[in-house]
Amino acid sequence: MVSISVRDRGPSGSPRPYLRAVDRRRQLLEVASAVVDREGLRALTMSHLAHEAGVTRQLVYQHFADLDALLRALLRQRTGGFREAMSRALERGRAGDDLLARVVEVGLAAPANDRRLMRYVFCGLADDQPALGGLVRTLRRQVTDRWLTVLHGTTAVTPAERARVWVVIMTMFTLWSLEDAGEVTAPDALEVMRAAVGALSNP
Amino acid sequence: MVSISVRDRGPSGSPRPYLRAVDRRRQLLEVASAVVDREGLRALTMSHLAHEAGVTRQLVYQHFADLDALLRALLRQRTGGFREAMSRALERGRAGDDLLARVVEVGLAAPANDRRLMRYVFCGLADDQPALGGLVRTLRRQVTDRWLTVLHGTTAVTPAERARVWVVIMTMFTLWSLEDAGEVTAPDALEVMRAAVGALSNP
Repeated sequence: MVSISVRDRGPSGSPRPYLRAVDRRRQLLEVASAVVDREGLRALTMSHLAHEAGVTRQLVYQHFADLDALLRALLRQRTGGFREAMSRALERGRAGDDLLARVVEVGLAAPANDRRLMRYVFCGLADDQPALGGLVRTLRRQVTDRWLTVLHGTTAVTPAERARVWVVIMTMFTLWSLEDAGEVTAPDALEVMRAAVGALSNP
Repeated sequence: MVSISVRDRGPSGSPRPYLRAVDRRRQLLEVASAVVDREGLRALTMSHLAHEAGVTRQLVYQHFADLDALLRALLRQRTGGFREAMSRALERGRAGDDLLARVVEVGLAAPANDRRLMRYVFCGLADDQPALGGLVRTLRRQVTDRWLTVLHGTTAVTPAERARVWVVIMTMFTLWSLEDAGEVTAPDALEVMRAAVGALSNP
């Protein structure tokens, strides 16, 4: 693990030190992450990232082909721990209630900033920035495929079945919002989640 | 109905004509609406609105105390027709399936731009702009109270019951997203909605 400061100019404004490609990429992602938490995802542009990282736009483009690629890399990094924990929770069995309790537990353990980022990407990004609708649809397909594989052992299901799974995932996101706003307790959220899954997983 | 152009400067850049307060307010909301559809809700600021409307910021502040007040007025205007149609649909009876079919029909009839705006406000705004979380919570309470009154005849329910109703509303929003993305048909959406409501309205 290389320690990298958010701005790598010297105190006298001297040029940025040389970084290996892998370290530069990591630095850019760290700066991008800080921008998103501070100013919202929408504030993240290639130019703004270049400015905040103290590098040229050209250098940013050497690491990320476009904003889409940058967003994907950022999400992959920010949700990596969550996705691993969720995979472990999903794989440990298929018994309805236990599975759910584990999934809700994993959700509760995720850092609030990361939950907020995931909610916005899946629930708000395409509506706020229609140009990114394609990215949202791709991510939705990936997440749904993952759940379908665990829950049904196949991704070859009807569109209605796919919609059911996505509604369950969105119900989890909705309950996170209510929990974060202090409008529902974790046990209540689990109870509502159980009701939703019960209905939606038995056509 | 007064006809108002989006920019009311004369072709020579002459000062804006005098408008009655009610007409000025309406003009500002029309310009704000156009900004939101073109650039996203986040692009809407008091300064940007003043610039686009060709008036001073001071004049904008005479009509709207702050961005919160402007957003509320804009949402009230943009969702007025939808809310009226939904109220009529909700009032016509309580039989589960018929009610649902009417609600889904009202949803399908809403202009895509308005659906997108509502989805973003309820699902993305607070995550993208945490400062507006209070506004989102207020709107959520109002909408949930309206549904609770129709469905249960009272708003004095447990937090879990309130969460159930909100999850049903969010399920409708989720299915709109899938429909708009061409991932699910209207009949499939209705079927999934039925399953969700069936489970969530019978604790």
